[in-house]
Amino acid sequence: MKGTLLFAQSGGPTAVINASAAGVIRRAQQCGFSKILCARYGIDGILKKQLYDVTHMTESQLRLLADTPASAFGSCRLKLPDPDVNSEIYLWIKEVFRQYDVRCFVYNGGNDSMDTCNKVARYFKKSRYDCAVIGVPKTVDNDLVGTHHCPGYGSAAKFVATCMTEIALDTAVYEKGRVTICEIMGRDAGWLTAASVVAKPDLICLPEVPFDVRAFYDKAMDVYDAKGRCLIALSEGIRDKAGRYVGEAGQKDSFNHTQLGGAAAFLADCITQKFGVKTRAIEFSLPTRAAGHLQSLADRRDAEACGRHAVELALQGKTDVMVTLEWQDGKSVCGSFDLHHIANEVKRVPLQYVTEKGSNVSETFLDYVLPLMEGESHPRYQRGVPVYFDSSVLKTIGR
Amino acid sequence: MKGTLLFAQSGGPTAVINASAAGVIRRAQQCGFSKILCARYGIDGILKKQLYDVTHMTESQLRLLADTPASAFGSCRLKLPDPDVNSEIYLWIKEVFRQYDVRCFVYNGGNDSMDTCNKVARYFKKSRYDCAVIGVPKTVDNDLVGTHHCPGYGSAAKFVATCMTEIALDTAVYEKGRVTICEIMGRDAGWLTAASVVAKPDLICLPEVPFDVRAFYDKAMDVYDAKGRCLIALSEGIRDKAGRYVGEAGQKDSFNHTQLGGAAAFLADCITQKFGVKTRAIEFSLPTRAAGHLQSLADRRDAEACGRHAVELALQGKTDVMVTLEWQDGKSVCGSFDLHHIANEVKRVPLQYVTEKGSNVSETFLDYVLPLMEGESHPRYQRGVPVYFDSSVLKTIGR
Repeated sequence: MKGTLLFAQSGGPTAVINASAAGVIRRAQQCGFSKILCARYGIDGILKKQLYDVTHMTESQLRLLADTPASAFGSCRLKLPDPDVNSEIYLWIKEVFRQYDVRCFVYNGGNDSMDTCNKVARYFKKSRYDCAVIGVPKTVDNDLVGTHHCPGYGSAAKFVATCMTEIALDTAVYEKGRVTICEIMGRDAGWLTAASVVAKPDLICLPEVPFDVRAFYDKAMDVYDAKGRCLIALSEGIRDKAGRYVGEAGQKDSFNHTQLGGAAAFLADCITQKFGVKTRAIEFSLPTRAAGHLQSLADRRDAEACGRHAVELALQGKTDVMVTLEWQDGKSVCGSFDLHHIANEVKRVPLQYVTEKGSNVSETFLDYVLPLMEGESHPRYQRGVPVYFDSSVLKTIGR
Repeated sequence: MKGTLLFAQSGGPTAVINASAAGVIRRAQQCGFSKILCARYGIDGILKKQLYDVTHMTESQLRLLADTPASAFGSCRLKLPDPDVNSEIYLWIKEVFRQYDVRCFVYNGGNDSMDTCNKVARYFKKSRYDCAVIGVPKTVDNDLVGTHHCPGYGSAAKFVATCMTEIALDTAVYEKGRVTICEIMGRDAGWLTAASVVAKPDLICLPEVPFDVRAFYDKAMDVYDAKGRCLIALSEGIRDKAGRYVGEAGQKDSFNHTQLGGAAAFLADCITQKFGVKTRAIEFSLPTRAAGHLQSLADRRDAEACGRHAVELALQGKTDVMVTLEWQDGKSVCGSFDLHHIANEVKRVPLQYVTEKGSNVSETFLDYVLPLMEGESHPRYQRGVPVYFDSSVLKTIGR
């Protein structure tokens, strides 16, 4: 295919985001694009013409790239204006695209990035610039609509399930244990927290269920009294009935002093104060999305397939669509979804999975999550640590 | 050998503590002990006669045991009195030992457990009960004297180095980043924090160096201004010149309100308040010692070897000693060390490794730490998560 393919990454990283990049680049090489460029720092790099030329990346570089967590080309969180209201920035994007003869633009990101993608596609249609604009999904939160699951989720779920399994062992070693509260990423969706069901914690609190702190104390203390310990998986995004984040409530005390830590630290401290019980708060934090050493093979394959499929869709003349993953006969199949359906909607965990009056997750959720975590794609280790792609080998091309 | 070998685990778990158990049990089986028992919940299980009979554990059970993080037989933190002052509890221990004809006692733990071991050995000598008492070291903190390194440290160091490598990638994806402070276990010794040097963070703060908060801010902000981000590895045990823990200082504000989070959360919050810079605090927390999925093969082999060597020492007629690891020609060799030399001393990181006026660690530390992290001992995964030993298959024997 003639012309240039331009790829960019956006939003928060995942363990397999670069597997999608490898999928795009490899397929674009096979299809004979005259040039393949990657923007540095997402759409921001396009505006600043900071572009890497990856036309001739080797297969071994692509494999190492796919091993590597966190956006190798850099990311941004730039929110573009509505092109119907303010088209200035789009005019500039079109000029840059023209300069490099970009005829296919693949943008890899989450909700906000799909919104960006849709705006660029709309502007190109309106201003009659012939360029396929294809979104590739990625988010550890798994909250994108239109797709059965998202690349990035399976590996993060594998991290959550593995760490919870190990923490469950660790917290059971003493006859008299603690109340241990693990705080898990996922913003307003509980998909990642729900993955902890693999390790069978005593309570699982999702943001899909309004958080009732009294009922929470009652349940936690009942378990503690019966077992001598209690292990809890808690979404960072839990909110009370009034919609206030529990972590947020914890950030200021009644004297307006800033308090540190999120929901888990806040609740653990409250339990210690109220009931005189030893507690521990563990925030899974950023390693959840960065743990390349725990890539799920299924997730990595999905991520690569989505990248490849983006190029296919462009070759088929599609634009303004996001690649999706459908679930057919126990495996992922790529499809597509109109981008304008996606913007700003959040896919949440269906309440059918919630059990025990909102304090646990049904084991039927395993049917959803286990296949996405399946298989290991161990990176190569050198002297004890994983070897990852070094972005400094990439060459930026001129402005 | 006639008689019973009794083994027990103590203190905080590590990723390879059960590899030492497997080493002890396998070697004891080969030496023909008439019975091999493991106490449930450490010395506490001996007092309560809660004992597992592991005489006939199979090789495949032992291999799975060695894969598994966290004390499979349970642990305790019981501190025994001085036998010269109060011998009551020792009399009871001797009675239990006599009942089961225990002639070799192997206790696996850290500083406090070696102290327990020494007290039991002293009492047995004094009261003329013929039983070898051998300590096997374990601690992720690596702070035990008399040994070049400790089983448990290598795997925890591998976790720290791997996570820091991945966090370094993750925190570099935006053109304008944050000040990211990672808080790492190790109590009053900086061995684990020093292992982060593998990932070359911008600052490394060890508890061996009195923490100067002004100098810390200056250095962090210099790096942030130059690079647009700053990555910091911080020991949980850092203290100011007056010996106060920085985390402790953060736990109460001037109105005596409890504040949540440790040193990293406290300092990150201060930096945001003072300089208006985005920050993130990440506590590596308990997964550091629980991550069986990141076992270092070198560490696992050392742990098993220490377990085996404990039985050897008993057969040689030794007692009141701890197994040690010496470093000879680039590999670990087992030795032994008198237990009474160990009690309550802490081995700290030599200041020769500290650079940049206390704000970093020399790459020469790599010569020490890399061989201990070397090699992977991936557990078996089933449906995406590691398979670990299930202690509920163990049978306790009567009281």
